[in-house]
Amino acid sequence: MTQPTAALLVVGNEILSGRTRDANVQFLAARLAALGIPLREVRIVADVEEAIIEALNALRARYTYVFTTGGIGPTHDDITVPCVARAFGVGVRRHPEAVRRLTRHYPPGQLNEARLKMTEAPEGATLIDNPVSAAPGFAIGNVFVLAGVPNIMQAMFEGIAPRLVGGRPVLSRTLTAGIGEGLLAGGVAEVQRRHAGVEIGSYPYFQMGRYGTSIVIRGTERAAIDAAAAEVAALMRSLGAEPRDMTGRSPEDEAEA
Amino acid sequence: MTQPTAALLVVGNEILSGRTRDANVQFLAARLAALGIPLREVRIVADVEEAIIEALNALRARYTYVFTTGGIGPTHDDITVPCVARAFGVGVRRHPEAVRRLTRHYPPGQLNEARLKMTEAPEGATLIDNPVSAAPGFAIGNVFVLAGVPNIMQAMFEGIAPRLVGGRPVLSRTLTAGIGEGLLAGGVAEVQRRHAGVEIGSYPYFQMGRYGTSIVIRGTERAAIDAAAAEVAALMRSLGAEPRDMTGRSPEDEAEA
Repeated sequence: MTQPTAALLVVGNEILSGRTRDANVQFLAARLAALGIPLREVRIVADVEEAIIEALNALRARYTYVFTTGGIGPTHDDITVPCVARAFGVGVRRHPEAVRRLTRHYPPGQLNEARLKMTEAPEGATLIDNPVSAAPGFAIGNVFVLAGVPNIMQAMFEGIAPRLVGGRPVLSRTLTAGIGEGLLAGGVAEVQRRHAGVEIGSYPYFQMGRYGTSIVIRGTERAAIDAAAAEVAALMRSLGAEPRDMTGRSPEDEAEA
Repeated sequence: MTQPTAALLVVGNEILSGRTRDANVQFLAARLAALGIPLREVRIVADVEEAIIEALNALRARYTYVFTTGGIGPTHDDITVPCVARAFGVGVRRHPEAVRRLTRHYPPGQLNEARLKMTEAPEGATLIDNPVSAAPGFAIGNVFVLAGVPNIMQAMFEGIAPRLVGGRPVLSRTLTAGIGEGLLAGGVAEVQRRHAGVEIGSYPYFQMGRYGTSIVIRGTERAAIDAAAAEVAALMRSLGAEPRDMTGRSPEDEAEA
């Protein structure tokens, strides 16, 4: 089976202006890797119709799944829905089930025209549940349209995750040592050449006066990862440093260990 | 004068795997806005030659300036330099001044082949200083190739910032009120229609049981921003909430105020 792939399209002037630091890329990257659907590309575009449509069409032709975040709220700058519809060449309509959900959600008299905008979906789209604030996302073709607010986006994603057809989960091991990246580089390149079935990344750190390197070995076969990791560990020892297994820890932990 | 524009190409498996949360987008977005060079698009691609070249060629044709981060270290997975050279159709060579700098930087015997890789640059490129760890970035055409490690990237950027030709700085004001986004949306859309020279964004928050909305007004003319802000403030008051001016504060501050 070919490994499925994913791309993310972040719609958001607030990211491009520097107002907000994106939190959705990392969440989706980690969750998708665990599902065996590696995230291959991210694009962040402005709230501009042509930019959204062009990026969406490029990504949905190239990857198994495309996720979008942002631009599905009630305001004038929320334009993701009509853009997705135009990318697919379909119209926009109020989705009856979405209208029912928002009618239940808001107190009487509070479901105004702006909020009704959140019931609009491309024709043929199916709803994605929003257990936080009711207004749904939607799915059309291989595109999943999610909210931009992180806790809402995450809840929406967990609702659709069981519907995604994943490949073999991407596993990893991380070995960290207080050795400069450039001293490890030659040996690590040789390990990579001998182990083509894994992907080896090298990440230096300089924090609080300490420096070192974390070598991350990623792949879908545990045995292949462990074999490469054993060679990386031997390389670190040959350079006089004891490797620490920091698998599953954050980069900050690695630097502080 | 037409406003110059910028794009950012993040080269990094570590972002796409979820290992690392990107910090460079927000820094560059904010600094470029202050220089009057709005960031219009970001792409995050894997350490894959074709992906890097294709994205770089798309971006450099479309925006005034393109910045890349990541992939210029000493290891086998650092491939940004040859990719940029291929995108420009030029060769790669060891840059003599870069060799001098690394020779000065490392203790005798420590400048190995892997580290010498960091002296390679596309033909015709000029160096970008690295005051942190010596290994330079470089500039070629409208492309600026920077390190991925945030403190090194930031130091490199500050070194080239005086060379960038900016437009009018992008200014903003932020007004926050404890009103649901959907109740403000209709009125804010009208303010946007009356003030086409500014860009109005609406950002809801739900934190610690409190909810509300921040309205951000961005533009290059202070008077135009203030005129739109006055109307937004009046709108908030008409809905029974006193607006707070949260200009320059973080989104977290707005939600907690």
